[in-house]
Amino acid sequence: MRKLLRVNMDEEKVRFEEMPEGYRALGGRGLTSQIVADEVPPTSNPLGPNNELIFAPGIVTGTSAPTSGRISVGGKSPLTGGIKEANAGTSFAQKLARLGIGAIVVEGTKGEDSYKCLKITDKSVDLLDAEVWSGIGLYEAFEDIESEFGEDLGVCGVGIAAELSGFNSGIAFNDMEGKPSRYAGRGGLGAVMATRGLKYVLVDDEGAGGVEIEDEETFSQGKKKLADALTDHDVTKPGGALNTYGTSVLVNMINESGALPQENFSRGSDEESAKVSGEKKADVIEERDGERPHRCSPGCLIGCSEVWKNEDGEEVGVLEYESVWSLGPNSGIYDLDTIGELNWQCNDLGMDTIEAGNTIAVAMDGGVKEFGDEEGALELMDEIRKGTSLGRILVNGTKFTGEAFGVTRIPTVKGQAMPAYDPRGIKGIGTTYATTPMGADHTAGYAIAPEIMGVGGEADPLSPEKAEMSRNLQYSTAVIDTTGHCLFTAFAVLDIPEGLEGMVEEVNGVLGTDLTVDDIPDIGKGVIETERRFNSEAGFTKEDDRLPEFMREEELPPHNDVFDVPDEELDKVFGSLGME
Amino acid sequence: MRKLLRVNMDEEKVRFEEMPEGYRALGGRGLTSQIVADEVPPTSNPLGPNNELIFAPGIVTGTSAPTSGRISVGGKSPLTGGIKEANAGTSFAQKLARLGIGAIVVEGTKGEDSYKCLKITDKSVDLLDAEVWSGIGLYEAFEDIESEFGEDLGVCGVGIAAELSGFNSGIAFNDMEGKPSRYAGRGGLGAVMATRGLKYVLVDDEGAGGVEIEDEETFSQGKKKLADALTDHDVTKPGGALNTYGTSVLVNMINESGALPQENFSRGSDEESAKVSGEKKADVIEERDGERPHRCSPGCLIGCSEVWKNEDGEEVGVLEYESVWSLGPNSGIYDLDTIGELNWQCNDLGMDTIEAGNTIAVAMDGGVKEFGDEEGALELMDEIRKGTSLGRILVNGTKFTGEAFGVTRIPTVKGQAMPAYDPRGIKGIGTTYATTPMGADHTAGYAIAPEIMGVGGEADPLSPEKAEMSRNLQYSTAVIDTTGHCLFTAFAVLDIPEGLEGMVEEVNGVLGTDLTVDDIPDIGKGVIETERRFNSEAGFTKEDDRLPEFMREEELPPHNDVFDVPDEELDKVFGSLGME
Repeated sequence: MRKLLRVNMDEEKVRFEEMPEGYRALGGRGLTSQIVADEVPPTSNPLGPNNELIFAPGIVTGTSAPTSGRISVGGKSPLTGGIKEANAGTSFAQKLARLGIGAIVVEGTKGEDSYKCLKITDKSVDLLDAEVWSGIGLYEAFEDIESEFGEDLGVCGVGIAAELSGFNSGIAFNDMEGKPSRYAGRGGLGAVMATRGLKYVLVDDEGAGGVEIEDEETFSQGKKKLADALTDHDVTKPGGALNTYGTSVLVNMINESGALPQENFSRGSDEESAKVSGEKKADVIEERDGERPHRCSPGCLIGCSEVWKNEDGEEVGVLEYESVWSLGPNSGIYDLDTIGELNWQCNDLGMDTIEAGNTIAVAMDGGVKEFGDEEGALELMDEIRKGTSLGRILVNGTKFTGEAFGVTRIPTVKGQAMPAYDPRGIKGIGTTYATTPMGADHTAGYAIAPEIMGVGGEADPLSPEKAEMSRNLQYSTAVIDTTGHCLFTAFAVLDIPEGLEGMVEEVNGVLGTDLTVDDIPDIGKGVIETERRFNSEAGFTKEDDRLPEFMREEELPPHNDVFDVPDEELDKVFGSLGME
Repeated sequence: MRKLLRVNMDEEKVRFEEMPEGYRALGGRGLTSQIVADEVPPTSNPLGPNNELIFAPGIVTGTSAPTSGRISVGGKSPLTGGIKEANAGTSFAQKLARLGIGAIVVEGTKGEDSYKCLKITDKSVDLLDAEVWSGIGLYEAFEDIESEFGEDLGVCGVGIAAELSGFNSGIAFNDMEGKPSRYAGRGGLGAVMATRGLKYVLVDDEGAGGVEIEDEETFSQGKKKLADALTDHDVTKPGGALNTYGTSVLVNMINESGALPQENFSRGSDEESAKVSGEKKADVIEERDGERPHRCSPGCLIGCSEVWKNEDGEEVGVLEYESVWSLGPNSGIYDLDTIGELNWQCNDLGMDTIEAGNTIAVAMDGGVKEFGDEEGALELMDEIRKGTSLGRILVNGTKFTGEAFGVTRIPTVKGQAMPAYDPRGIKGIGTTYATTPMGADHTAGYAIAPEIMGVGGEADPLSPEKAEMSRNLQYSTAVIDTTGHCLFTAFAVLDIPEGLEGMVEEVNGVLGTDLTVDDIPDIGKGVIETERRFNSEAGFTKEDDRLPEFMREEELPPHNDVFDVPDEELDKVFGSLGME
């Protein structure tokens, strides 16, 4: 039976609790959202004493299920003011699960100058002093921690951005090289962790009993089916798109579709974008003796990741499509090394790259720097590191920065900045941005799959009728985020029915349940209903399920579209689900 | 028949329109709120192209009705995100009314580097270039304008704070000495004016026909009754409390009650407060050959104002109670000359003093300066003047500043900072702060009258049952704000029935209507319903009708109360009025 680890930072006490009956069939996002809904007052100040931070590995995380090393982190978001779940792929998740811990609940607030480090082993749970690592970057801190506590640990930490209570502060997890490059980045949960007084979490699973599996046979059958699907589908298979070019394979595709936002969402394509494409990046990685493909956590069959090296041959993190775009074309920057350095800065400071790149672009739109000013963009990172007033503006994200500098073109929903798809050119993803309880988030219901990639069906990106598609994608995504599988497994299971069956059988194997594929929509609906109810009680209405005004009025070159999905269509995605 | 003057800043065109039938019985707040509700999309960006700025003198403004020189300004507020009306006492209002102008509607947005000045005379309306006055303080600009256009003008302008698109930017009107000390300050309407591209409005009423009065006899009878009430009531009569000490008479009263917030709402009294009391200030004014009593506009019988001079004998504006408190005790500052200088800075930069004082206090709470640091507070004003990053934080007000510096004790409602009464010690005013559509605003329903002053009945300030009282006060206030009378007339008319009759008769005289005192609640209800409907359509819910979390949890010394008015009681104030 999985346990719940409760950490009270006021009393500096930890205790294990039996997992409540109602939580036993939950994991990942399903579990974090349920605990937040049950324990956090929806109207509480996200940085105040009544918020909580929840960690939960997925249901099958820590088993041998393929591509399932995800950790969900939940709380009330300082960026959106609503419920938040952000997840990352990291062995941290697997180690936690193998220790039999279904969730960590962190409550209470930071004492005077006393950041703590939570160290979890098979034998003990301790709160250690962590002041020594405050004010320093995460790369240095993760190295120190590895030296002090050993290499084979799951490490999680928050950086300078979180110490500044930044609304754009993420939670970093170590990658396979021990670097802080795996992020539950979105929504400012780093600041929730820091204001609890928690700076690091270390997980050592030596001697752990592993994840209990109720029905080994069903589980094995399921994981084989899923593995077959993953290794068969063009997007996920070895030598497939993700494995060859990583997520940046999208740069050319989305630029060609006219929906790759340039210079703060003022144009949808630019031929310069080719300089930062996945194809170009793969070439450079090869030249520099980097590594591609690579994995974020053990047991992944897709391998969408990489080890990117700078011109001096130093490893400087992973360059995902979203990061390349946000720190690149969206700020008029088309140099992979500058983007790589900006990405390293985000990882080191502890920030979400999507939010950070949008922040830089909006600051440029507000005249703080010129578009395309590579040195200028790096200087902005330094302002955050120094904690200057400008840094305090930037660390609070895109909306805050836009408001500081009188910018009205602010590409956010529920206060969270948009990912790398302009919704004026791809309307299903815009429908997801508008309606997910999370704020603008492509991973909440990845309509790009049918709209651009022809995966999971085909859809005209410019058709405004996207409520049903977005709803179905959001429901299935909520389930995937609950199981602990990487969202990229969706490419395979959307097209290959046996893959989806396999995923369900893995879950049945672990839990001893009898779920079928037909149960997926209802399970997803349940998760989203819980999240929407929290948001409703926090004061959200259908007016929060809208894109910014400028996207309905300013046409996006080159195709000169506006976002014309009617409000009624947006409201059809979830209807009154979860609302009072 | 009054006219509506529409000013389109995109086309740089002006035109007079007949006042629509439905607007003819409205003026002041009733009219600005109705036009905003009719013309501004509730979800529009307040600084974007779809917002409007409305000016409207009250129904009786410009006549000889006593104490009625108020101008209402309306729009969608960048500070609160909801509807806003702010009003000021100034001869500008009277001149506009005497020109037969019932409302000015300013629409469109600023062109590139082209601030304009709207000049209105009996013969012409012109948009002049106003670039020459951008970037300079309002005292200098108002002097320049007086030199260039003559002394006997109504002048209205926005300052550097508005040029920075500051959420705390007010609209200044000239006082009897031509200084920019009369403010429609709250809610950031200055930035709405500046983003329309309008910097100044000049009104010359030479040759104007005056306000049409339908029934002179009823009007005269009414104004006599109101004048008698004002000159009879202890609070408003010559030699009465307001006339002798001005609004600062409240410093000692509220400090004694334990509800004068000190150091960002962390204590409710301090014996040092006596150094900034109304009694002390009146002494200094006498010593320095200042003037007290004084009037904000011709025809006022109360005379609550003053001419405050600094140590060098220079006039530096009016020191109202709210300004003295916000720039003083709330920041741990107990020196009238420092407060006077801070107040001058607010007037010169074009900021609301309540918001600015709270901003300084929250910045101090966040460690930007120490509480009580007088020089430090003045330095913050300089940051705004220079438009530094810190200045851009501060100019966006209390909530923005608190969020930049990780402060969780942020005393705002709907994003607007609280006035000088801690709701933990005086619960009726807290009920008004929570529920008025305007954001925390004492003038929306001044429960201090019954709770502290024994005017309009008596109420225990600590009793949490305040829904009915707040509702009644808010309804009658909405009517007073619509007539164009100063809110301080309420002290007299709440206690003297003939005074209230007189006010209604003045309105009947001007409009030719047959209203009675019994119609007041319904008229007020109508105004507030319009405002609440706008807010509801903008996405507000009952969760926005709440005080900040910390006020329910942190006890306020010395009496150690929390704000314990139940949510249900707050929701009883207006029920579903105006909500979907």
